[in-house]
Parts: sequence; C-alpha cells; structure tokens
Amino acid sequence: IYAVLPPSPFTTNTKPRHIKHPSKPKPPSPSVSANLPSLAFHFPARMAESSVNPTPLLKDELDIVIPTIRNLDFLEMWRPFFQPYHLIIVQDGDPSKTIKVPEGFDYELYNRNDINRILGPKASCISFKDSACRCFGFLVSKKKYIFTIDDDCFVAKDPSGKEINALQQHIKNLLSPSTPFFFNTLYDPYREGTDFVRGYPFSLREGVATAVSHGLWLNIPDYDAPTQLVKPLERNTRFVDAVMTIPKGSLFPMCGMNLAFNRELIGPAMYFGLMGDGQPIGRYDDMWAGWCTKVICDHLGLGVKTGLPYIWHSKASNPFVNLKKEYKGIYWQEELIPFFQSATLPKDCTTVQKCYIELSKQVKAKLGKVDDYFNKLADAMVTWIEAWEENNPSGKSADVANGAAK
Amino acid sequence: IYAVLPPSPFTTNTKPRHIKHPSKPKPPSPSVSANLPSLAFHFPARMAESSVNPTPLLKDELDIVIPTIRNLDFLEMWRPFFQPYHLIIVQDGDPSKTIKVPEGFDYELYNRNDINRILGPKASCISFKDSACRCFGFLVSKKKYIFTIDDDCFVAKDPSGKEINALQQHIKNLLSPSTPFFFNTLYDPYREGTDFVRGYPFSLREGVATAVSHGLWLNIPDYDAPTQLVKPLERNTRFVDAVMTIPKGSLFPMCGMNLAFNRELIGPAMYFGLMGDGQPIGRYDDMWAGWCTKVICDHLGLGVKTGLPYIWHSKASNPFVNLKKEYKGIYWQEELIPFFQSATLPKDCTTVQKCYIELSKQVKAKLGKVDDYFNKLADAMVTWIEAWEENNPSGKSADVANGAAK
Repeated sequence: IYAVLPPSPFTTNTKPRHIKHPSKPKPPSPSVSANLPSLAFHFPARMAESSVNPTPLLKDELDIVIPTIRNLDFLEMWRPFFQPYHLIIVQDGDPSKTIKVPEGFDYELYNRNDINRILGPKASCISFKDSACRCFGFLVSKKKYIFTIDDDCFVAKDPSGKEINALQQHIKNLLSPSTPFFFNTLYDPYREGTDFVRGYPFSLREGVATAVSHGLWLNIPDYDAPTQLVKPLERNTRFVDAVMTIPKGSLFPMCGMNLAFNRELIGPAMYFGLMGDGQPIGRYDDMWAGWCTKVICDHLGLGVKTGLPYIWHSKASNPFVNLKKEYKGIYWQEELIPFFQSATLPKDCTTVQKCYIELSKQVKAKLGKVDDYFNKLADAMVTWIEAWEENNPSGKSADVANGAAK
Repeated sequence: IYAVLPPSPFTTNTKPRHIKHPSKPKPPSPSVSANLPSLAFHFPARMAESSVNPTPLLKDELDIVIPTIRNLDFLEMWRPFFQPYHLIIVQDGDPSKTIKVPEGFDYELYNRNDINRILGPKASCISFKDSACRCFGFLVSKKKYIFTIDDDCFVAKDPSGKEINALQQHIKNLLSPSTPFFFNTLYDPYREGTDFVRGYPFSLREGVATAVSHGLWLNIPDYDAPTQLVKPLERNTRFVDAVMTIPKGSLFPMCGMNLAFNRELIGPAMYFGLMGDGQPIGRYDDMWAGWCTKVICDHLGLGVKTGLPYIWHSKASNPFVNLKKEYKGIYWQEELIPFFQSATLPKDCTTVQKCYIELSKQVKAKLGKVDDYFNKLADAMVTWIEAWEENNPSGKSADVANGAAK
C-alpha cells in the first residue's frame, strides 16, 4: 500500500484534514534577528561562521513537532522563535475537531484519520489519546533535526529577565559534541567561557556527535503522581545554568515536553510506545523512548545532553488521573530499569534500526514475563521500525556517524 | 616505633614545631550565628533538627586541612565560617620557616620534621614540595569529616552578592544521600524545592551514603598547563546552582582545592600519591586520589557529589612551571583512564583498605610497564595504608556503611 504513495505524500492529498499549510515567506522579524547574533558569542569558534548568516540556524533542517488536542494559541508566545521553522502538528483525539493554528506559521497537521490512512495497519503502533502520538511526527518528517514541545509550555525567562529562545539552545546543544566517556566538572566544555579541566584526557576532548538534547522546565516540575500528590505546591524556581552530557552507562528519565534530537542519528529509537487509549499504562511514553534511546546511544557512541534550555511549564496535570495512568508503570519500572541497565547489544548492531529490533527481542524475552503488555509493546516496536523504513527509505538506515559500535 | 607513641601524640610533644594551638573558646560571633539559620531552610526535613542547635554543624566532627608554604592570612576572610572548627595545617617546604596563623583559630601544625618523626620510614609515602602533602592531615585527623582547601582560595559570592559559606554547603552535601545509580534531571533531589522526577525508580530514592563532596571555583578555573597557555585570560564567571551525583561507572577529575569527604567512609583512599620533590610528576595528586576514590566508591556503593559550593580561586599558577610538572601526567593519563575505567575489585574487598591494597596490586601489574614510577607509587600506596592503620587503629577499618560490595 505504501508503494503507491508519492515520495512526499503531503502535497497531493485531496481531502486534507491533514493540511499542508505553508505560510508566505516573510523576512525575519527584527526581534528574531536581534536574538540571533548572541549565537556567535556562545558558540565555539568552529561554529561561529553560521552566525554571519541571518537565516535562523537549521531553518530548513529542523521540524517542530507538536502533539495537541486544542487550538495552538500557545504558539503566539513562541512566534519570534518558531515562525521561521516548519511545524508538524499531530492532532490527538477526535479527528472531526478543528485545531486552530495562529496565522503566519508554516505547518502540516495530521489527525487520526491521516495517521490511519498513511500507515494503514501499521498505524496500530501509534498511540491514541496520549501525547505518545507525537512520534508519528518524527516518522513523517523529512528533516535532519526535530524539536518537540508540549502545548502547555511557554517561553521562560532567564535570571536576567530575558526570554529564553529554547529552540536556539537546543540547536547549540545538538551542534556541539557530547562527552559521555568522562565527566567534566565545569559541565559542557564546548560552551563559551569554559573548557575541559585539568585531568581530562586529551584523547577524549573531541567528544562524540550529540544525538539528543533534553531541556528542562521552570514552574511545574515533571513529577510522578505520588510526588504531585505529596507536594502539590512545589514549583521549580531554580535556574541551573548548565548543559551536561549524561555519562555512558547511566540511564535518565527523558521527558518529552521540551526535547530535541538528531533524527538522522537516533530517530528510529524515538518511539514513544503504546500508551493511552486501549493500553494499560500512560505517561511512560517519553520514559520508554528515553531508556531505549540511551541504551542505543551508549552502544553507538552517541551523546545525550540535558540541562538548558528551560521552558515555562504552565499547568500541572491532574494527579489523580495521572495516578491511574501511571500506577502500573511505577510498579513495572522497578523491573524495566534493571533490564535497561544490563541490556547489551551485539557488535553487528551498527544502525539504530538494527539496535532497536534487537532491543525489541530482548523486551519480549525478558519483560514479556512481567506482563503480556510487553509482548504487545515488543511487536509494536517492530511495526514502528517497519513503518519508519517505509517512510524513510534507504539512505536513512546507513550506519551512524560515530560508526563503531562498542 | 609507633607503638611507643601515645594514642594522641599531639599533646605531649616537647619540641613543638608541630604546634597544638587551641584557641580560647569564644561564643560564636554574631556573623556566624546570623549565617546559620538558613540551613534549616535548605535541608530536607530529616536534617532540619540540626539547625535548632546553635552549635555550627559537625563542629566537633570535622577538621579543616590546609597545606601551605606561607602565612595563612587567607583565613581572615574565612573567619566567620572556619573559626568554630579545628584546623590541621600541613606546612610544606622548609621546616625552619615559621608560618603565621591569624589569632583565634584552633589548630595543629605539622612541618616535614613532624611528618618524619611521626611516620618514621613510612614518611616516604608523603610527598614533599607539593600540595599532595595534605593527605598527611587526613591521616592524623581523628574526626569523621575532612574539608581541605588551598590557601589561595577565598570566599566567593553567589549571584545575589551573598558570601558563600563553602564549608556549610559541603556539610549539606555530605549529610544528604547520593544517587549514583540513576540520573536525576533536576539534579540533587534532596535539595529544598526539588525532588526525584517522573520515571525515577522509587526503590532508588533512598540513595546511598555520600563519601565525597567536590566543590568548584569561580575566577581562575582549574585548567592544565596547555589550556592555561592557550587561554591565559579565561575566567570562570558562571555560577551553576547545582549539586549532582557523579554516576556510577563515570570517572571525573577531582580537584583538591575545595574538597570535603567522610573520612570514616573513604579516608584511606584519599592518598594524594608521590608528587613534587624527587618525583617525575606533579599536579596529578588530586587526580590520582579522585580516580582511586571513585573506583572504590563505585565498588562499595558510596556516592560522590560535585557542584556547589564555589570558592574564589585567586591566582593562576605559572603555566610554564605547570607544564614541566604535568607533561608526563598528560601522557600517562591516556593509559591511566582506561586502567581505572576497567578496574574491578573482587567481592571480598569490603573495606576501603582492602580495596586500596587490591588497587595497588593492579597498579603494579598493569601500570608498572607504562613507567617504573608506577611501581614506586604502588609501593607507596601500600605504605600509606600501613601508616593509616597504625594511626587509625581497629574500628576504622570496619566494613563501610553501605556494606555490600557490588
């Protein structure tokens, strides 16, 4: 069925509930270009050349993926930073509902009908009524980089009161190397004003390619339901001015709220699992993707960064609803973490796809006995990779940049 | 020879170039007590009780160790924070020189003659003309906790302009647990205003005992000679408001300039090696201690934290002199890091001493071929443990708190 789809199916549809909506090209607004020159100041010398170009960095190489069930008024606040980029909106829930997108944004929008039509039976791997559906946007993107953000996330301010261009910081993170093999006590050594400290082996100072940039949140912290219930009033007010590489061998809880990644390097691992409608679990979509991604990045010698940029997370979700979604995950994660901590991939897994298929086998073999859900999830992981390869033919499955699997 | 020494040799010496100098007890100055109440605010609930006590935290359980070759005028700036504590001053270089200590501090001072007299032939393991001599202070301390600081380090200010009580922050770090087995994206989860984020396994939220608190430096960063030469004007001005656990399995460059540790948990691993006079290398003393310590902490399930507190590092050492001291280390560390990254300790190594002796054997077996220096160093590691056990009899070599070696 996919063979009959044109290479870019989004321009020839006749019934576009899935809408390709290019905005008229406009010159960058003064506020945008006023924000850009600071890039030159922060980037290491080898990247400074990009900043002489007034075009926003990676303008034609990055898609912004937004899962949503409501009108995207939140984009107004992001306009100076997002407007130059293309948006992929994944509409969750009732497909007959119309989602309003503010004027002037260049976007395509997919609802459930579009997902079903484009993926056919393989659409079963895409979650419904859960923000896990965002990974469909990763799959249909044709760009090298993805930034994904939730629609309850707004522009945060740094301690000086300046609005933070989160996307710009993610791009900095993705374009500078990572250092997973040895911890640098002054944090990201590639940042302006800092470096590798005494005792850091010189042979490791080139770093490795960065696959993931995990941003944080001011205001409402990303707590699980039990912590939300116990600390309903806790707000994150601490601005930690750091980006760091999560060391090789360490797992972390990856939150999908404010996340960027190199789709060419790690895209096929960014599957957000089976969550929400018809599934026994929710709110573990990004965690699942994070654990799989970290194991594969460690295996392939790719870097994962966390820290800056902050966004302003505006509203706490209902802890009682969350508890219902999470409770099995809270129990299961006690088995999942040891599983991922001890997972090893064979040397012939030299592409993300091969790694991911191998991981799906290990999920079935070792987690299937925890709950039958994991058998279903393991199958969906395979379906996801099949769907990925159909929509991202050939070149994309080549061995990744850092090549040598370890 | 040591059998004839009284249990506390420092009270009965007749020729005190090594001076026991108790200050008259004074009530805490207003500035000291004014600084303390904030502790209650930052500490987790279980520790808040300490703050109702007006006595400075750990007053009788912590020694401040200072290696020096000059008058300790720098203590004036630290007076409000250090005066309640006991100092151990290790005088390096010419023992006939008199080191002046500002009035009102309670201290004992050891010069090379004292070290030779107290350790006899085992004094060979204590470096001369190198700040590595500080570890002699760790050995003769009778306290549970150590804070060590260089005499070119001054009180830093936080972004609000408030002077930072570095010692108080180290104590907070040491008294709250560490989380080496899983990365928390909001940094130290025990800090006031934050917690474990969604996806953090509940079984790991008790954490483990913290053995080491590694503090950072504003102004002059701790760079190696090549980086100093290339970036002579770089200053660290970024205040990163975070404390974090260095994950299990990750090595880091431990700097001895602003460092605290639990002597009962990890003291015997805090050996700063053979550096300076008569040795082919310098400026790797703290690195060596840090690598050994981290491997042993990982094995014993103990935590190592880095980040806050900052001190103000006032003067850059001469990069040309440093290059001469370092150049072999820069070459050797390329072999040392893989050695420590792959070092494993057998399960029956249940005390720091046993771990350290085992590590010394591995140093001899695997690094002896890099340079004969490492054979000498391996022998000195054994001598150090012998000297440690003679000065810290019996109880101190019991299995550490987290017990079960992994």
